[in-house]
Order: sequence, then C-alpha cells, then structure tokens
Amino acid sequence: MYRSHNCGELRIEDVNKEVTLAGWVQRVKDRGVLTWVVIRDRYGITQLLFDEERSPKELLEQSKTLGREFVVQVKGTVIERESKTKNMETGDIEILVSELRVLNEAQTPPFTIEDETDGGEELRMQYRYLDIRRNPVKNNLMFRHSVAMEVRKYLSEKEFIEVETPYLIKSTPEGARDFVVPSRMNEGQFYALPQSPQTFKQLLMVGGMDKYFQIVKCFRDEDLRADRQPEFTQIDCEMAFVDQEDILNVFEGLTRHLLKEVKGVEIDAFPRITFDEAMKRYGNDKPDIRFGMEFGELNAVAQHKDFNVFNSAELVVGIAVPGGASYTRKEIDKLIDWVKRPQVGALGMVYVKCNEDGSYKSSVDKFYDQEDLAKWVEVTGAKAGDLICVLSGETNKVRAQLSALRMELAERLGLRNPEEFAPLWVVDFPLLEWDEDTERYHAMHHPFTSPKPEQIPLLATDPGNVKANAYDLVLNGNEIGGGSIRIHDKKIQAMMFDYLGFTPEEAKAQFGFLMDAFQYGAPPHGGIAFGFDRLVAILGGQETIRDFIAFPKNNSGRDVMIDAPANIDEMQLKELNIELLVSESAES
Amino acid sequence: MYRSHNCGELRIEDVNKEVTLAGWVQRVKDRGVLTWVVIRDRYGITQLLFDEERSPKELLEQSKTLGREFVVQVKGTVIERESKTKNMETGDIEILVSELRVLNEAQTPPFTIEDETDGGEELRMQYRYLDIRRNPVKNNLMFRHSVAMEVRKYLSEKEFIEVETPYLIKSTPEGARDFVVPSRMNEGQFYALPQSPQTFKQLLMVGGMDKYFQIVKCFRDEDLRADRQPEFTQIDCEMAFVDQEDILNVFEGLTRHLLKEVKGVEIDAFPRITFDEAMKRYGNDKPDIRFGMEFGELNAVAQHKDFNVFNSAELVVGIAVPGGASYTRKEIDKLIDWVKRPQVGALGMVYVKCNEDGSYKSSVDKFYDQEDLAKWVEVTGAKAGDLICVLSGETNKVRAQLSALRMELAERLGLRNPEEFAPLWVVDFPLLEWDEDTERYHAMHHPFTSPKPEQIPLLATDPGNVKANAYDLVLNGNEIGGGSIRIHDKKIQAMMFDYLGFTPEEAKAQFGFLMDAFQYGAPPHGGIAFGFDRLVAILGGQETIRDFIAFPKNNSGRDVMIDAPANIDEMQLKELNIELLVSESAES
Repeated sequence: MYRSHNCGELRIEDVNKEVTLAGWVQRVKDRGVLTWVVIRDRYGITQLLFDEERSPKELLEQSKTLGREFVVQVKGTVIERESKTKNMETGDIEILVSELRVLNEAQTPPFTIEDETDGGEELRMQYRYLDIRRNPVKNNLMFRHSVAMEVRKYLSEKEFIEVETPYLIKSTPEGARDFVVPSRMNEGQFYALPQSPQTFKQLLMVGGMDKYFQIVKCFRDEDLRADRQPEFTQIDCEMAFVDQEDILNVFEGLTRHLLKEVKGVEIDAFPRITFDEAMKRYGNDKPDIRFGMEFGELNAVAQHKDFNVFNSAELVVGIAVPGGASYTRKEIDKLIDWVKRPQVGALGMVYVKCNEDGSYKSSVDKFYDQEDLAKWVEVTGAKAGDLICVLSGETNKVRAQLSALRMELAERLGLRNPEEFAPLWVVDFPLLEWDEDTERYHAMHHPFTSPKPEQIPLLATDPGNVKANAYDLVLNGNEIGGGSIRIHDKKIQAMMFDYLGFTPEEAKAQFGFLMDAFQYGAPPHGGIAFGFDRLVAILGGQETIRDFIAFPKNNSGRDVMIDAPANIDEMQLKELNIELLVSESAES
Repeated sequence: MYRSHNCGELRIEDVNKEVTLAGWVQRVKDRGVLTWVVIRDRYGITQLLFDEERSPKELLEQSKTLGREFVVQVKGTVIERESKTKNMETGDIEILVSELRVLNEAQTPPFTIEDETDGGEELRMQYRYLDIRRNPVKNNLMFRHSVAMEVRKYLSEKEFIEVETPYLIKSTPEGARDFVVPSRMNEGQFYALPQSPQTFKQLLMVGGMDKYFQIVKCFRDEDLRADRQPEFTQIDCEMAFVDQEDILNVFEGLTRHLLKEVKGVEIDAFPRITFDEAMKRYGNDKPDIRFGMEFGELNAVAQHKDFNVFNSAELVVGIAVPGGASYTRKEIDKLIDWVKRPQVGALGMVYVKCNEDGSYKSSVDKFYDQEDLAKWVEVTGAKAGDLICVLSGETNKVRAQLSALRMELAERLGLRNPEEFAPLWVVDFPLLEWDEDTERYHAMHHPFTSPKPEQIPLLATDPGNVKANAYDLVLNGNEIGGGSIRIHDKKIQAMMFDYLGFTPEEAKAQFGFLMDAFQYGAPPHGGIAFGFDRLVAILGGQETIRDFIAFPKNNSGRDVMIDAPANIDEMQLKELNIELLVSESAES
C-alpha cells in the first residue's frame, strides 16, 4: 500500500490523522524556514508542510530538492491550515510531513502541468502522457468513461445485448476507404478493418439477436478534415421487429437518460422535423435550435420589383439578426465580406435595418419601399432593432450560405451556449441523391435503407422525391446519430438495386452474403449509430473530439507520440508477401 | 409496434388477452382440422393454434403453408392449453390466432435450428447467422454480455476508468506477429494492430490515470492452435501506486464478484501458491485444483535399488489415481500407451496397485518389496483401491508428462466438473527463462516486469533463479489472467536490459518512447490482463472459446461466413503503394 488516502479526500475532520499520500509534485514554495509542497494525483491536490520547528532538518532540506513532477510518497499528520483556501477541495488542511520518499525523479516537463498550460497542441500531443495529467484532459477522459457506462447501463436494462463483431473483415469493391490488413497465413489475401459493423449487425438481426448494441471502434482511411480521426468510436445499435417510431423512442430515451445522468439536464419529448422542413427553416439538415433566426422565404414579397438579382433568383431568403440594427456600416460591410469568402460563397448580401422608431433602412431602398420591407419583416419575424440579412440564388446553395451566416452570427452573439442542450430528430430524409459525376442516383444512407412504403410507386416517376425511413438525431447543430429502417423484403431490395443501377450480378458481388442471409428469414429491422467521440464532446460542452480521445491522431493520421505509422522492415514485408511499390518519382 | 409481447413471456394469467407476437416458425404440426405452429424469438417459444371450428378457413389453410424459419406476425387470443407442458415456459397457454401475416419467407435452413442440431461445425460457421438462432449459441452470447457488464460495473465502482487506447499503432522490431496496416496517406508506412495495449496502459499510469481498465480487442498473426483466434478480447487493467498485494486483492475481488453474480458461486480467499510449488505439486503452472492427485516425488524412496531407469532419472514422481487398483491389465496397458504417445512423450510408466487387502502389486516388484512400496504410498497419499502411476526422467519433461496424465485421468474420472470453480493465484514466476536457440535469457513475462527487489543481487550470480513480481490467476486448470508489477526505476530498467542482452541503443530503438515517458515521473505501477474469451467460456462451463464469440475465425484465420481474408483489386493496392510479392513457385 503506497497510500492510505488519495490527494483529493482529506478534510478538516481528518485533522490529527496519520496518513500516507503519494503523487506528483505540482509546485514547491520554499520560504527558507519552511517549505510548502503541493502534490497531485488523479483525485486532487494536497499541500504538504515542511517546517524548521516541527520537521527534522534533513527532511526540510530534502523537500527543497524536489522538482516539478517528481513522484513522492509522504507520511505525516493532517493539520489545520493557518490560511485556508477554497481553491482546492483539501484547502482546509495540510500535511505536516514526517517521512518523505522520492519514488521517482522527473525531468522538467516540456510544458506546465496546469489547467492553462504553456504547451502548444503539437507539443502536448507529442507528450500526451503528460497532457493527460492536466485536469481538462483527465476530466474529459473520465467523463467519456461515465458516458459509456451510462449508455451500457441504459441499453442493457432495455434488454439490448452488446455483441462484439469482428475487426478483421472483408474489403468490398466499393470500400475504397477501407484500411486493409495483409494476411500472413493466407498468401496474397487481405482483411479489411470495418468502416462500421453494419453488415454484422444486420446479420445479428437475421440471427434473432433482436436488440443489439456495441460501443465499437470503426476505421476510415480518408483525407482527414479538421476534426476527423482515422479510427473513431460508434455506439452501434440495431433492433428487430420494430418500425421507425420504436427506434426513435428507444434512442430518444437513451439520449434523455444521458442528458439527465451526466449533465443533470431534463428534456421533454424531442422535437421532430422533416428533412425538407429543416432545409426550409434552417438551410441545414442538422439545425442548431438553441436559438431562432429561422429562415423567411421572401420570393413572394421580393420578386415583384425591378431588382433583378432577386427576380432571377430561385430563392430569396432572409434571417432576422437580434439587435443587428445597431451595426455600423463598417460592421455590416465586414459581414458582407464574410459571406463573400470562398468558404461561404455568396455573391452579395442585402440587408434591412429595423429601426427602433418603426422605420426601415435597407441596402435596396431604390427598389423597395417601407410597405414592401414591412412584408419582409413579417416573413422573417424581425423585431425593432433587428437586422434582416437576405441572400438569393440557387436554392441549395443559398440555403447553405445563409445557414453558415446564421451559425456565425449566433456564435458572435453568444447564442450557442455549450451548457444548453437542444436535441431534435430530423426525419424523412430523401432515399436517393443525385450524383453529378456519375449522372445517376446514389443511396443517400446506404442501399439497404427502406423507402417509405407508400412512396414506392414514386420511385418510377420521381425518384428524387422519394423519402426514406431514415432519421438523424441532432444535438446543438451536430449530427450525433443517424440510422434507418432496413429493407427486409427481397423483392423491394431487388427493385432498389435496379434503381441504383446495379445489375443483379453486381448486387450479388457486392452484397452477396448479406443477400444470402436474407433468404433464410430476415425480420423487419432497423437501427442507428451514434458518433461516440462527438456525442461525448458535445455533452462535455465542447466541439473538438480530439480533446476527448486519450491518444488521438493528427490531421495526417499520425500519432506523433509513438510516431506511427512507420516503416517496417523488409523481412516483415516478405513474410506478408508484399513489397513496396517504387514510386514514380523515385523511378525517374 | 410489431408485437405486444415476446414469445417467452405469456403465462396462464394472460388468458383471454388479445396479443400480437412476431417470430420465426420453429415447427408446424398439421392435424388436418387444426394446425399447431410453434414460433420462436430471442425470449422463448409460444404455440399458436389454428382450429377448423374457431379460425376462419383461409387462416387454417394459410397456416399449413408456413415453412420452417418463416418470419410471421400473428394476432390472437391467449387461451389455456388442453395439454400443458413443462418443456417450455409458455407451456400453459397457446394463442388462438385471428390474424396471420407472413413478414418474410425463408428457404429451408441448411441445418435444424434446434439445441441439438444436425449441422457440423463447418456448416454452422458458414451460416453463423442461423447458428446464432440456436439457444446454445444465443445464450452464450447473452452470457458474454452479462459477464462484460459485471466486469465494467465492478471495476467502475472501484474507480477504474475505461480508456480506449488506439488500434492503429506502431510495429516494433520484435513484433514479428503484428498485423500491419498500410497507410494510404503516409506512403510506404504502416500501422500495426496492437497485440495488447501494454505500452498505452503504462503511459496512462505515467499520465496519472491511476486505475485503468479496458475490454479490448487484441490481434496476433500467429499460427493458430486449436483454440486461438487472430483477434481476441482482453480485460486489460493497470494500477498506479500499488504493490502486488493490492493487485491480487482487487482482481480476486473482481473474479469473486463474477462467480457470485453470473454463477451464484461464493468462494472465499483464493489459495496462492508459488510457481515452484505449482510445478512441484502439479507439474504445471496452471494447476486444476478441483481434484487432488497431487504429485509425490519419489527419488528418496525409489533410487536405492537396482532399478536403473529410476536411478538415472533426475526426477521420479507419481500420482495416486482414486479407485485405479481395479483397472484391468488391458486398461493399464492402454494408459501406458497413452503416456507414450508423442504428444505426451513418456518412455514408459511404472504402476503400483494398492489392493483393498493392504498389499501392493507393482510393475517393478522385481526391484521393490512391500516395504519400499509402502513408502511410495505414503508419499503419493494413495489409499486402498488406488493406482499409483509413476513417471521418471528429466524434471521439466516428466512433470509435464505426469501433469498431462493427471488431467486426462481426472477427465475420465469425471473430476473436472465444469460447474465447480476452483480459482487460485500462482505467484513468484521466474523473471527470466533460458532460450535454447539464442542461448540467452529472455524475459518470461516482458522486459518491464519487476524482479523481486530483494533478489536483484541474484541477477548477477544466478539469474535463472530470480523471481519476478509476476502472477497468474488460474481457474479450473486454465490461465485466465496474468500480470506483473512493472519496473518504474530507470536504473533497474537499464540493468534489466543489460541482463537481457540489449545494448542501450537497442533498448532505445525498441522501447524508446516508453523509456522517454518514464523520465518524466513514472509512478510505481502494475497490472493484469484477463483473456476475456476464455474467462467467459470457463464461467459458462465450457472450454472452447469459439462457442462464445459471435463471428469466430477458423484455424486458418478465415471467416468462412464472409470469406475473409480475400483478394483486393490492383487499384486498391496501388493506392496503398504496395504490390504483391510474386511467390517463388510462381516465378519458377
């Protein structure tokens, strides 16, 4: 036993107890006749006292040799502090040390182990094991654990079974982003790491497992956007003998449980909106509804005058920015510049100031009178003091642009409070999406997603408008989960493959063994998968998933701490029956 | 909602309820004027009744068209059965069906979906999704889930944090059995899949995480023995500021908790024996102590006569087989043949029958008189009616041979009751083991395992006898967990590398970044890892891990259901900057 107590638990009631503590030296305050040393472990910090009058001389001397991050074990007596502090939970006491043992020395760490550190991202990643000593990172990892525990507890109580599906699976012809794994024992053949356990969870439903879940690592070898990881964690779920309503209820229950247990937030029934409505009202299929600024479509009230920009636009749409009427000309110009940045891509922005006196001042006063603008105000719900921002153009593009502006303004206005939680379901996603490159429809979710049964006839006449039994769970403007009811009927599946342009042979080659399985009695089933890294981050009040992963990779997919990936030796390659391709630049 | 109840829950109290059930057709019994159909889901089976008098004619006709494994939904009334059965939990009732809907048809499955199936191993693996419908497999998977839940519950309550460590890590020069993963983004470089999270869990201790666990997949690309899998699951654990005693206590607590919660078995303090004692008493470092037949070393009482086989042997050792005196000459000859099989490798076996009348009859009566044999009886603890089996030879070999015989006889005698649980700790493993090939010592556990501090001086004079702070948890003759206290002191670590024949440069190349981490204040730490597949199998009263894995691989590392590993196309190889090595046989 290296300790009788941890560094976070001693209180005023413990005064006079003989205790043994162990931990890392946080700081040493040398006052000559006495030394204070603060030590830290996972549970907190405790102050040690070495005192000329009450400590042996050697001990006082030894205390002065301690460096930051030394690992020490001390015995001593809990005493009441002369100057108490509320800054630490053990702030009422300190330990008058009678024995000090250095368990390990430490080099000076490359950055300070404090809540606010002087270390940059790259340095902290390289020394992640030191970064983890810092409260923010440590607390995130502990928080992640508690969320995972609550997920398991909730689903297990609902009779879900966690089943481990394999990691060494098979690459599919369309699995261009599969990580593959050469097999030593099966020469020239490869396993693939799963992008998701989709196939296996459907097989478990065929197998009668009924309610399945798994918190599971998934892998995708793709160019990484700012906040993606080549390996990521999903809460993967599937149920049999259910329709969409059953699934929404169960996983709304799960999300509500998490909000309550880990955040203390109680939320009633989650709102549900259709994909079409989400696009219309927020320009986005994952709207942040913590704040308003809903879209007002202005075609009817803005396309009757000589303003050709609007008249030629497919969509004219605006939002009312609370308090925006007070923006200066310069501020508004900056806003216009912002929407014109290539990342947003608007060609310009029209605005209307709603003055406190009830009058309006717009950038298009030449074309629209006060009466016209009053209609804009009505449609966008603007109040006195607001600024109406209006964009126009091709529907999909202008919605995306205005959504970006809405989010940016909400951020600036402090409307995106990370400790406020606004979940909603987006339902009725389109079944298909048009791909410009291949000039054909692709499955928006995946080819097993069920169309709305009543819309199946529409597939022949208006495929782009067929809706799927597919749904996303959105939290604070982030998609945290998504899923669908699967097709379990062979005939409908065959029809779907046909619409997606697969010949029966192609369908068999790509999805053969799942199709085979479906011939032996597939139950109606459906499921959902949550992005666990993101869910935890958002519940933790942050948006960067990397801060909630113990050993994350950087944007090049590298682990800079262990320096992976790395070269492997020729011998090993040979055993695997592969060799490196000589790159063209090396050849020339 | 596809069902109001599941197929396992209706009881006599539910009579007259209108219910909706869904499931698979288990069997159809057509009696002309009525049909009984038994349907099955995860929760049980329920009998449906279609009756000429009480059912619409079409419904009765339709019921006769149902085939095995059809997926159906029925509505009907719960009625009391005329002939009740205790064979099913719903045996008091049946459902008089008013509506029948076939949700999916099914081809006749390739084997019967019954507890005892007619399908062979290979066929069942190929159609694993059907195999999972069978109770024995389904129950194993559900049992596995409950064990995992209890593990997490127990450790979480003890303040352990489950931290996910990365799957895409780095191959080490000694990682010959690493699976590797080519990186598309980092040309010519490879990740490796972890054989265990050993390094990361030690880094988490350096990071102050204090108490870590993880139920985690590990990977090893090695020739598979009968019951190994290329991917397997560990309960991986590590603690800081602990000594061996702390770890044994915590994980004895975990094991006791599991035995109690999932088996209802209460066990007091686990026995502990040293590695040396285990070898001496059982010839095995994972002794099955559910039964006796302990080894009696006979050198002192058998090497004083003219029997040269014994006189020239390093070890003469025997066991007393309960009731074995009644074996016929033929049976004993068969036993001798058994120990002489190449898998066991004994050159012969001496035996002594302990007759009920107190006399002895041995195969070496020429050399030993009754008084001599009486001493053998004393040493082996044989009773009247027992058979003493004696082997001799080189100590390590003869112990292994006699251990094999002991286990075989226990199996035959029915002493290995799978529902009896006898855990024990084996402690004080040797630190080093001599490797005949390289003619040097290797770390028995791994190079970070701490020697017993008081034995460190022995490293210089008698390294083979230095014991480690390493321990195994053994259950019913299987190692279910093993671990060690790690070295956290740089000086001792350097010394160990030296003894293991690493130059400082080699040590740095292989273990560099862990060594680096240790310079920033490594706490004393240690841990343990449990083989989760095996643990679950043994708790489940079985020894084959494959029966407790949803989608296992065969002995060639193949998943015969999805047919993986498989070839991948040239395009994909090219993107990964690798090509297949043309095999030598193909070249010639």
